[in-house]
Amino acid sequence: MGSYTARIQKIQAIMKSQNTDYMVFAPTSHLFYLTGLKTTADERLQVFLVPAEGKPVMIMPDMYREAAENLEEKNFELATWSDETDPVNLLLPLIKKGSAIAAIDERMWAGHFLSLRRAFVGFEFIGVSNLMREIRMFKDQYEMSQLAKAGGLTDKVMAEVRMVIQPGISEKELAFFVESKLKEYGAEELSFKPIVASGPNTSSPHHYTGERKLQMGDLVVLDFGGLFQGYCSDMTRTFSVGKASAEVKKVFNAVKDANEAGFLAVQQGIACEKVDEVAREVISRAGYGEYFIHRTGHGIGLDIHEDPYIVKGNQEILKTGMTFSIEPGIYLPGKFGVRIEDIVGLTENGPVRFNNFSRELIET
Amino acid sequence: MGSYTARIQKIQAIMKSQNTDYMVFAPTSHLFYLTGLKTTADERLQVFLVPAEGKPVMIMPDMYREAAENLEEKNFELATWSDETDPVNLLLPLIKKGSAIAAIDERMWAGHFLSLRRAFVGFEFIGVSNLMREIRMFKDQYEMSQLAKAGGLTDKVMAEVRMVIQPGISEKELAFFVESKLKEYGAEELSFKPIVASGPNTSSPHHYTGERKLQMGDLVVLDFGGLFQGYCSDMTRTFSVGKASAEVKKVFNAVKDANEAGFLAVQQGIACEKVDEVAREVISRAGYGEYFIHRTGHGIGLDIHEDPYIVKGNQEILKTGMTFSIEPGIYLPGKFGVRIEDIVGLTENGPVRFNNFSRELIET
Repeated sequence: MGSYTARIQKIQAIMKSQNTDYMVFAPTSHLFYLTGLKTTADERLQVFLVPAEGKPVMIMPDMYREAAENLEEKNFELATWSDETDPVNLLLPLIKKGSAIAAIDERMWAGHFLSLRRAFVGFEFIGVSNLMREIRMFKDQYEMSQLAKAGGLTDKVMAEVRMVIQPGISEKELAFFVESKLKEYGAEELSFKPIVASGPNTSSPHHYTGERKLQMGDLVVLDFGGLFQGYCSDMTRTFSVGKASAEVKKVFNAVKDANEAGFLAVQQGIACEKVDEVAREVISRAGYGEYFIHRTGHGIGLDIHEDPYIVKGNQEILKTGMTFSIEPGIYLPGKFGVRIEDIVGLTENGPVRFNNFSRELIET
Repeated sequence: MGSYTARIQKIQAIMKSQNTDYMVFAPTSHLFYLTGLKTTADERLQVFLVPAEGKPVMIMPDMYREAAENLEEKNFELATWSDETDPVNLLLPLIKKGSAIAAIDERMWAGHFLSLRRAFVGFEFIGVSNLMREIRMFKDQYEMSQLAKAGGLTDKVMAEVRMVIQPGISEKELAFFVESKLKEYGAEELSFKPIVASGPNTSSPHHYTGERKLQMGDLVVLDFGGLFQGYCSDMTRTFSVGKASAEVKKVFNAVKDANEAGFLAVQQGIACEKVDEVAREVISRAGYGEYFIHRTGHGIGLDIHEDPYIVKGNQEILKTGMTFSIEPGIYLPGKFGVRIEDIVGLTENGPVRFNNFSRELIET
């Protein structure tokens, strides 16, 4: 039995235990995880319907027929539709009377969801994540090793980009350099559009990389990652262009210490929020608590953001196989910001980092 | 009055005429069109709520506060939320009793839609597209000129990639070349992941670019585009590696003639489906009707696929300001495929093509 079929059996067992009649997937990482098929969502409906019992059905536009038929394990029935027909008609006969609960892929386009409600009249809708997380949150050795390889890529690229940081180069140029290097070293694609923030832009955690050119005295935040065999990496480092001020050093050290404290706190049996609390406390003690304006981390795997989230209120217990970011930051509005991010995996022998580029303050 | 504010006034007038109480936008091209804000969707809820009357409200995670506050025209109220709170609570007091119809951004994540239903109890839900299309489908001169510039980029890149097509280079290498060149020439990002299909892979219209290396005698389909000031381009050409067979020539000419016939059919006052019909007839007459397995085209603008669609059944009447692709193709399963795609804009003086790279069969 192939691994995709095993995954579907696992998820069907979970569905039964949770009284979920159907799972309805869009072309997201869930579909890739369950079938190996990788397509892009667009306005044409693509659905993978998994009933609690029996064979799943894939409904695809005609143009994906070959791709679906050539999968390694074709563990589903395939139905395709042409542009002048309504694909929801293919769904109608598949939904059994008496069924009542359908779980929807959270990343399905709402427009598709609105359309396919016609096949699920009277149903209660929930999200698929609460069920999928029970299998996807725990990475096996193969998955861990892909994540480590993806992390290795970012280390390599960070070491190269460090050498080109200098006054005059723009955020966009740095982002392009990062992207080219990631792909040159084998990333299939980017985990997300690289974030390159410089000078005052560093005070925005998700700055939209722009035309600003680096100046002496700037901080530069570089946050990027690539995909390796479908698995994501994600790393952030903050550099100083020239000598850093005393204030920058103080903030940088608080973030670095928070990153380290968060990493050391990771162990089986504690709650996710505990890691957030430990990292946050370091920053609060340094006097910057109110400027750490986001959670400490997010799970990572086939998706760049997935369970478990390292955030206050998340009482999920850390277990072997979980993989997530630890990325404390301090953002002083109008001044500057610092973030240091690694991906951490919890193994039988404790936590390991998948990124290992220096966490010290580098003054370029 | 700024242009964003004018767009919101236009859409509010449409809402009133259609009895729609609220429009609920996700961070998609609609949000960019209405506010100038460009962010990425993720698991954190981002909502732009436009009531039929009164000021819109933007609900964003804390981390986007600066970006939202620094927009050119801040034509909305801003409310931000932190990770340990539930953003739907911010929506609740905004929804007036007695209102009944909410239009949802079709590209909102279904998971977000499921959450925010709590603020819209008893509502009927429709999609925003039917309302937005009435303004977005008609490009003004500024928008047309951006699309033409984006098209010029693809011409330039197609001319360069043509020179590196040769036996031994892989699909992925060609895709990387295309991507690098697009960005070098000023594309902010890709319109979509370049499609590079070679040999038998060309028989799949949306082939997932892979490791296959080109061989003498292959066809190669290149389908790509980039963004210029937010506006998309999209062009496809099919090349022959070495001499083409008689069968390839026959298929190629049918596709080329269908592309030309479709272009010439474009004029004010005819239905979109007529353009599809004209292009399809050329291919049917050549004996390949059943192998033209997709619609003739899609609208293009801030989105790579938007209204109007050039497809059977679409009786939308062509008018000045509409912009769309014409991209007939023939796909012979297990053998090869050919597609030729241009972007066409309908001006007061008739149709113009935004791409002008040669449509003749090039044997490299």
